[in-house]
Amino acid sequence: MVTINRRQLAKSLAAGIAVTGILELPVKQIKAESSSNAEPLRWKQVHPGIWRGTVGTPESNTPVGTRLVPPALENLASLPSITVAPLNSLSGMATTRGCLLRLPLEPDEMIYGFGLQFLSFEQRGKKKAIRVNADPTGDTGDSHAPVPFYVTSKGYGILVDTFRHADFYCGDARSKPTHAVASAGGVVNAPQDKKNLAMSDPGQVSIEVPRAAGVDVYLFAGPTILNAVQRYNLFSGGGPVPPEWGLGFWYRMEAHAAQERVLSLAEEFRERKMPCDVIGLEPGWQTHSYSCTFVWDPARFHDPKEFLSRAAALGYKVNLWEHAFTHPASPLFGKLLPHSGNYGVWGGLVPDFAGLPAREIFGGYHGRELIDAGISGFKLDECDNSDYTGGWSFPDVSRFPSGLDGEQMHGVFGLRYQHALWQQFLERQQPTYNLVRSSGALATPYPFVLYSDLYDHRQFIRALVNSSFSGLLWCPEVRDARSEEDFIRRLQSVVFSPLAMINAWYVKNPPWKQLNSKLNNEGYLAKDWQVLEARCREIIGWRMQLVPYLHSAFERYAADGTPPFRALVLDYADDKSIRSVDDEYMVGDRMFVAPLFAGEESREITLPPGTWHDFWTGSVIHGNTKISVSATTKNIPAFVKAGSVFPLATIGLSSASPASGDLTVRVYGDGSLPWRRNSPSGAQMELSWDWTRSEGRIRQRGSVTKAYRVVKWEHMG
Amino acid sequence: MVTINRRQLAKSLAAGIAVTGILELPVKQIKAESSSNAEPLRWKQVHPGIWRGTVGTPESNTPVGTRLVPPALENLASLPSITVAPLNSLSGMATTRGCLLRLPLEPDEMIYGFGLQFLSFEQRGKKKAIRVNADPTGDTGDSHAPVPFYVTSKGYGILVDTFRHADFYCGDARSKPTHAVASAGGVVNAPQDKKNLAMSDPGQVSIEVPRAAGVDVYLFAGPTILNAVQRYNLFSGGGPVPPEWGLGFWYRMEAHAAQERVLSLAEEFRERKMPCDVIGLEPGWQTHSYSCTFVWDPARFHDPKEFLSRAAALGYKVNLWEHAFTHPASPLFGKLLPHSGNYGVWGGLVPDFAGLPAREIFGGYHGRELIDAGISGFKLDECDNSDYTGGWSFPDVSRFPSGLDGEQMHGVFGLRYQHALWQQFLERQQPTYNLVRSSGALATPYPFVLYSDLYDHRQFIRALVNSSFSGLLWCPEVRDARSEEDFIRRLQSVVFSPLAMINAWYVKNPPWKQLNSKLNNEGYLAKDWQVLEARCREIIGWRMQLVPYLHSAFERYAADGTPPFRALVLDYADDKSIRSVDDEYMVGDRMFVAPLFAGEESREITLPPGTWHDFWTGSVIHGNTKISVSATTKNIPAFVKAGSVFPLATIGLSSASPASGDLTVRVYGDGSLPWRRNSPSGAQMELSWDWTRSEGRIRQRGSVTKAYRVVKWEHMG
Repeated sequence: MVTINRRQLAKSLAAGIAVTGILELPVKQIKAESSSNAEPLRWKQVHPGIWRGTVGTPESNTPVGTRLVPPALENLASLPSITVAPLNSLSGMATTRGCLLRLPLEPDEMIYGFGLQFLSFEQRGKKKAIRVNADPTGDTGDSHAPVPFYVTSKGYGILVDTFRHADFYCGDARSKPTHAVASAGGVVNAPQDKKNLAMSDPGQVSIEVPRAAGVDVYLFAGPTILNAVQRYNLFSGGGPVPPEWGLGFWYRMEAHAAQERVLSLAEEFRERKMPCDVIGLEPGWQTHSYSCTFVWDPARFHDPKEFLSRAAALGYKVNLWEHAFTHPASPLFGKLLPHSGNYGVWGGLVPDFAGLPAREIFGGYHGRELIDAGISGFKLDECDNSDYTGGWSFPDVSRFPSGLDGEQMHGVFGLRYQHALWQQFLERQQPTYNLVRSSGALATPYPFVLYSDLYDHRQFIRALVNSSFSGLLWCPEVRDARSEEDFIRRLQSVVFSPLAMINAWYVKNPPWKQLNSKLNNEGYLAKDWQVLEARCREIIGWRMQLVPYLHSAFERYAADGTPPFRALVLDYADDKSIRSVDDEYMVGDRMFVAPLFAGEESREITLPPGTWHDFWTGSVIHGNTKISVSATTKNIPAFVKAGSVFPLATIGLSSASPASGDLTVRVYGDGSLPWRRNSPSGAQMELSWDWTRSEGRIRQRGSVTKAYRVVKWEHMG
Repeated sequence: MVTINRRQLAKSLAAGIAVTGILELPVKQIKAESSSNAEPLRWKQVHPGIWRGTVGTPESNTPVGTRLVPPALENLASLPSITVAPLNSLSGMATTRGCLLRLPLEPDEMIYGFGLQFLSFEQRGKKKAIRVNADPTGDTGDSHAPVPFYVTSKGYGILVDTFRHADFYCGDARSKPTHAVASAGGVVNAPQDKKNLAMSDPGQVSIEVPRAAGVDVYLFAGPTILNAVQRYNLFSGGGPVPPEWGLGFWYRMEAHAAQERVLSLAEEFRERKMPCDVIGLEPGWQTHSYSCTFVWDPARFHDPKEFLSRAAALGYKVNLWEHAFTHPASPLFGKLLPHSGNYGVWGGLVPDFAGLPAREIFGGYHGRELIDAGISGFKLDECDNSDYTGGWSFPDVSRFPSGLDGEQMHGVFGLRYQHALWQQFLERQQPTYNLVRSSGALATPYPFVLYSDLYDHRQFIRALVNSSFSGLLWCPEVRDARSEEDFIRRLQSVVFSPLAMINAWYVKNPPWKQLNSKLNNEGYLAKDWQVLEARCREIIGWRMQLVPYLHSAFERYAADGTPPFRALVLDYADDKSIRSVDDEYMVGDRMFVAPLFAGEESREITLPPGTWHDFWTGSVIHGNTKISVSATTKNIPAFVKAGSVFPLATIGLSSASPASGDLTVRVYGDGSLPWRRNSPSGAQMELSWDWTRSEGRIRQRGSVTKAYRVVKWEHMG
């Protein structure tokens, strides 16, 4: 083994040289407190590029300790071969309070991650509490889906393996000064007058895991920040590949809509050529939903079987809203009773999803009664610890038969709830794509997309960007809007996201017919609503065109852990101007978008290095600069890498439409970057452009998801 | 001992009969969890009407365990004699997580308290975390001054003796259902469709104290809710009696104002007849203030001695802003170094105020260098755990020589910081009145008034009302305003509060000259600013008139623990319409005010039972009803009890003005309620009205604070 530094390592890797050695991180040794029992972590390599460090005696109930999906070992092996020694100066100690870890930070080292975060992007200098908490109002770390995982701009990631409310002090907590000085050296009469110490000198991350006598830390090596994220995702099991219908368009019906009303609107979508793959039913489908019975309400759905078969005949998948708290009138109640927590919510049981019995009872019922009847997936609400909302969740002091307390259960409830249902689809070898309100560590492989009741558009985009650091998918769903412009801007964003959905639970008519919800529900449609409908039809059409491209991005997510939607900094880590960009994001490998926000006349767009084309017009834009675009443009600003061969499906009424296999292939610039599909089965397809012959080529090996044919090659710019 | 119920008890007490017995609380026994090691609390009576219940082995560092002010035992003895057995069904247990307590709740029993709370008033059905946290954005319990103490409408109070982040589940956490039912019994498809279980059935308060192997709980008996609060306040040491100047008017200077500018404005106030007792200096008086040196900046204050003597000659007290984090250039640094925490803030030390050495070093310096030089008090900033603001405080994982960790230290830092300075005034037998940003349990006797950076006017009033349940004083200070109306409304409120202050730290000229801060600092005064100045002069004049009345209210606070400013429900607990009133409050025993908020055309006022007079006009209003008042009135709505003999001082330029002893005495209605001063020294004064002779009387025994004479008797209504 040789000792190398990171610069040498990056150079060798870039040159394709396999490297084995000890990575020498130029960090200063952090002095242990005199009074402490700090010890270096005991490190062990567990997978290529992944080490586990242990301090004290870890708990048994942890994300890794109780994982239900194995790491994607083969795919991990395909990442850059790297043998990196863990950071020497990491230390930890068990304390009377729990367990305390200290990790070094270099000057200018930036921290990203911590799961679904709405209120900030760059985390250095901040404290983040990893605590599931619905509707966080402050930038405290609290979120629907916080994850005790961060990556740094120096190209490594740290997972703290705990379900507990860990506090991460990201360089903000500093040791006390030790020497008097003669003079204050200049007047500083406000905090902001101080030099930003948090960034410019070496610092440390202090992490406290409460109540634990020890903890495991997993270090994911790079060398790049993207590599670290990939390793985390593959360690988690690799990304999910949704069925094509999951990437189509979703529409959630008004909460109390009955069978006939739902079907009538579903028919209207077909008649008026509004593409839609999935219709979602909200609480009203059940006899009782706060808490849930999971039983069709016969007054609204007198014949669920007929309802589902008519929906299927129209080409729709049906998704059902629910939450887990189980009403005493539910057929599940009796069996679930011994496998639930000691507190109730809304008069219902809290299933002990950390244990197999509750997952099997709960999931089994869903499988037999709902999935087998034709339900394609679920929307799992209220699992996000709204315990400040007035008893909307179970307290941290709860106890569960599996041995978890309420604090731990909140950390895993969302993910194990997902597992209880996903397991049923897996057993049936039935692809699925779902929604969920809470998630956590190692969630990457789960075919569930997060949503919430929060609604600020800019925060939605930041959440999408942040999610990419921690293996999460986020749906910036469209509900109401304060103006037609706001509605359009939000719809433009959501079609460039993991799940494209309008959630119309609060209005009887589609929002494009009347944005004012009161008027909408009273049946007063907007004058000329057809104009807005046409605009929506066009935007939803973009989504239908993007399905093949998005599908291939998800295939890569499964294969090598690259998030399909991700922060620019993951692709352009070396570029300082990219470092703080939290309102643009990559879509697949060829495209980035920069959403517009209602009420803003223009926006600044940071262009990453390289040559880009305007996605819509093909015009060439040279990168590594900032440009200002006027918000009068009718499209969302989207850019494609020069050279890209970019497939667009023909718009059908659903992704099952035969037309959706007919591709228009855009060739941006010289077409030197072919487009590939790589199914998990090993099938491949490649679309490339031969500039010398001026012709496109399609090569296929085995059968990818569907039969594609190219109906048109289109030159852009 | 006999067993009696509360109704009998109240009746006996009302009839003046001394009662000894066991109070039988009609609460259902709470079933212990089958898996738990719940035990009833071990109870012991510690003072008349006060019991201590113990579970497990409590920590030694707790509010009561480390208290520095003894209970006001003599005054406690003067409260209704009552021997009440503790609540039998209280139980507790030490768990792996810490310590869990369960207390019963009756149907309709309402909970109030938890210290300085901005966002809610009625706490039943909510979860409150007792965690010092600056600028709380959600209704989570977090606050500058949370207190682990609540009272209920059933007339008792509960103090949980801990500095830790205790979670109080106030009836929101409910046991799981145990029996299946045949039918859901009606469709419930939204949480709000559910019956409000939280209020209508018996419930429980669950309290978790993290990390503690045991805890003491103190029960403060009533029989009324006000009695419970009084017992808590007297147990804490009784209320402070501020010097008269503390109850006058305060004005804080622009942050960077130098000696001459401060004095010039102070002179201008005198010339323009703006009453003012205290001028406050903000950060700029020090050579370095983030962190602090506690040394006068010679560039701005070239001669502090001359500055202070000129201010004194003009009749002003001077108050200094500071925070505790001590810069390496401070003369305090060397001595403080071994008595500080292991983390620093803004490059300064965190004094270990829980230990005597740090308090003596820190306080001693302040005494010698600042108090002896003439400083009347301090404004203690930044002690409120802004650790989500980016390193603006020390982390919970900190360690202090006194043995506290950071979590505990946050719970006591504000109060012990107060003590370090108050001790210096006590040693000098010098009355003082101060400002502070954080406080906690047992804070009643401290002559410190809370303030914050929050600024919503309605929240400010709610905070004032809530503070009265937990021995806290709150200053709804006036800073900027979005309109002239907003400015006036805020000023009208603050003169009816514990500390009447304009905090003009951000503007060079008084805000009444120019409300727009940019224009103000550029020297552009508003046209006709003299009109607003005159309006302010009048409102500040009200405050000067109220000083004797307010002073007597504080004397009662010291004598029997009745808060001088308090929620109406403390005086009118039996009146259902009063229960949720959080925007009106009692001022002393004779008056209540109902502030107006800018932008609202009118407001509804709930009038407590009895006959009232409009304070301003004397017109009679019969209570026990709601009235609507138009916001066009030039005054803040204020009401006085029929019969009140109500003193108003003559307005002087400060409370030291000889005129301030000349009283105009208003007689509302029949004058059957005399006004009394009761100095702690035992001196008494009484103003009464003899209706038969149609003359007022003044009786005096010993010398009260100052020599009063009545210059006018005025009949009102």
